[in-house]
Amino acid sequence: MDAVIPRSVEWTDGSVRLLDQTRLPAEEIYLDCRDIESVHDAISRLAVRGAPAIGIAAAYGLIVGLRSEEVSLEILNRRAEYLIGSRPTAVNLAWAVRRMLGVASAANDTSPAGLLERLEQEAVSIHAEDAAACHAIAEHGFPLIESRPKLLTHCNAGSLAVSELGTALAPIYLAHERGCNVHVFVDETRPLLQGARLTAFELQRAGVPSTLISDNMAAHVMSQGKVDAVIVGSDRVAANGDVANKIGTMNLAILCQHFSIPFFVACPLSTVDLETPTGAEITIEERDPEEVRAGRAPADMPVYNPAFDVTPASLVTAIITDRGVARPDYSASLPALFAADD
Amino acid sequence: MDAVIPRSVEWTDGSVRLLDQTRLPAEEIYLDCRDIESVHDAISRLAVRGAPAIGIAAAYGLIVGLRSEEVSLEILNRRAEYLIGSRPTAVNLAWAVRRMLGVASAANDTSPAGLLERLEQEAVSIHAEDAAACHAIAEHGFPLIESRPKLLTHCNAGSLAVSELGTALAPIYLAHERGCNVHVFVDETRPLLQGARLTAFELQRAGVPSTLISDNMAAHVMSQGKVDAVIVGSDRVAANGDVANKIGTMNLAILCQHFSIPFFVACPLSTVDLETPTGAEITIEERDPEEVRAGRAPADMPVYNPAFDVTPASLVTAIITDRGVARPDYSASLPALFAADD
Repeated sequence: MDAVIPRSVEWTDGSVRLLDQTRLPAEEIYLDCRDIESVHDAISRLAVRGAPAIGIAAAYGLIVGLRSEEVSLEILNRRAEYLIGSRPTAVNLAWAVRRMLGVASAANDTSPAGLLERLEQEAVSIHAEDAAACHAIAEHGFPLIESRPKLLTHCNAGSLAVSELGTALAPIYLAHERGCNVHVFVDETRPLLQGARLTAFELQRAGVPSTLISDNMAAHVMSQGKVDAVIVGSDRVAANGDVANKIGTMNLAILCQHFSIPFFVACPLSTVDLETPTGAEITIEERDPEEVRAGRAPADMPVYNPAFDVTPASLVTAIITDRGVARPDYSASLPALFAADD
Repeated sequence: MDAVIPRSVEWTDGSVRLLDQTRLPAEEIYLDCRDIESVHDAISRLAVRGAPAIGIAAAYGLIVGLRSEEVSLEILNRRAEYLIGSRPTAVNLAWAVRRMLGVASAANDTSPAGLLERLEQEAVSIHAEDAAACHAIAEHGFPLIESRPKLLTHCNAGSLAVSELGTALAPIYLAHERGCNVHVFVDETRPLLQGARLTAFELQRAGVPSTLISDNMAAHVMSQGKVDAVIVGSDRVAANGDVANKIGTMNLAILCQHFSIPFFVACPLSTVDLETPTGAEITIEERDPEEVRAGRAPADMPVYNPAFDVTPASLVTAIITDRGVARPDYSASLPALFAADD
């Protein structure tokens, strides 16, 4: 099997091709969704995951299997509502579907066939914009890791979560492609093991040398000089540079400070929320205790299971975005990236 | 069910009562071993674990079910060899069995019945000395945690590993008994989950308020002010105070330094090895990659699985032993504890 970076979503011959992430890493099975019901089903049972990947799948889902004679605003609205219901909390899903509906409203005077074509273009644009953001993150991040090829990452901020390449993994894929001697330690990422299941899978598939560890082994591998830099994704970055990401991220940032190792965060600039002043305003979701008990702890053992933590900006060496790299002071550098983008 | 600290080994009516740790935490089953074969079987299949607990079980195992008319040095030597073979790498097992044989050699001129009685006394002494060490650790550690009742521990350094009370858990049990408002965060301790399976079980059973977390959540709970001190056991302490303990211990020590939280190590003074100058001389055993893959990662994913890490002495606030508390500089304070013991 040739080394290739797996893709979570593709649009091929009028069908939405999804890598079924519920079967990974044991089986690499692609779902060819030729109707909206298949896409709805794939989203609701988490066959596709990662905010951008869900949005892209939904954009294609709005039009997949639709014959031009069926196209009308009424039908599109009904399909949109149906898709949004597949995972009501997924912000990117609703965003992508509404963007598609906006195009439909604006182009309402064209023929049904013309409108369908316009919608397909829009879905392809949504997809292409995400891919472009990943490639831009890769290029902006590359100079930071080129001389630091021994990396460690947490959770899955890879190709599987987005259109391609990923966020944290994007500069790593580029450095590997350009012949840097890349090696990645992959945190298994308890409790849901996204590192062991997904990041391990995609790095293996792409031929990037990598080694799986339990999350609590990071200090030990750092103490042995085996890590030049840590790079992770983010769910939300506050205006001051505080970073919300998968639980365990702050652990790594503190270890990096102790061992004088750079700690990089990679995300599209759209993940930076200037309306959130600091990490203190970010609510930490708590998840099902059974994820931690995992059938191994006493059934009545109390559990604390926060899904995220917030790494203080003071521990973040740089934030790599599709619009450039922000450095401390983030309360100045992050708005500057937005301004440069205007 | 009354709250009670479970015991790993007891000597009752001429039988060795072992808590079957392979069934924990789902089932609390006690094995009444009335012959040497049952003890051999329990040790070899890890029903009893923890170096001191194995030694105590073996000491009783040497005489369990033995009729006085059978007692001879030849029989005892044969039984000793058989028991040592149940887990050849267990240093405490061989130590306890050899101590029993030494007594037998010295008392060889007594009657068989007298010799059997003397051997039972010796086994009870081995057991009692371990229990006394645990109680001494509890008393020496108590003043350090009395005003710091919000604790976090890693792995299982509890009653299940020793005769009773444990090492790291001993001061916690005492503080709980004395009415301190104790709460313990329990690291699940990947990959083998000794925290989730064993520490969670024994703290629940003893009625000590406790909460299970994944190892990577420690920084988050510390950042919320929920931890006053971390207390862990140790497998070996070097002469300079470097501490070898379950993988993930060093992570916690670094986090403690970051959050200005005391980091305590509790162990009998016999765990301190003055012949080992520093942690650099301690070989880190690597274990089966499948423990980390756990059937969730790709089957061919490379894994690094060190069983231990070495926490530098500079991160250790105090080492609590049965002979007193050592503080930095450990290269002076540890030998002083040995000297005071002479």
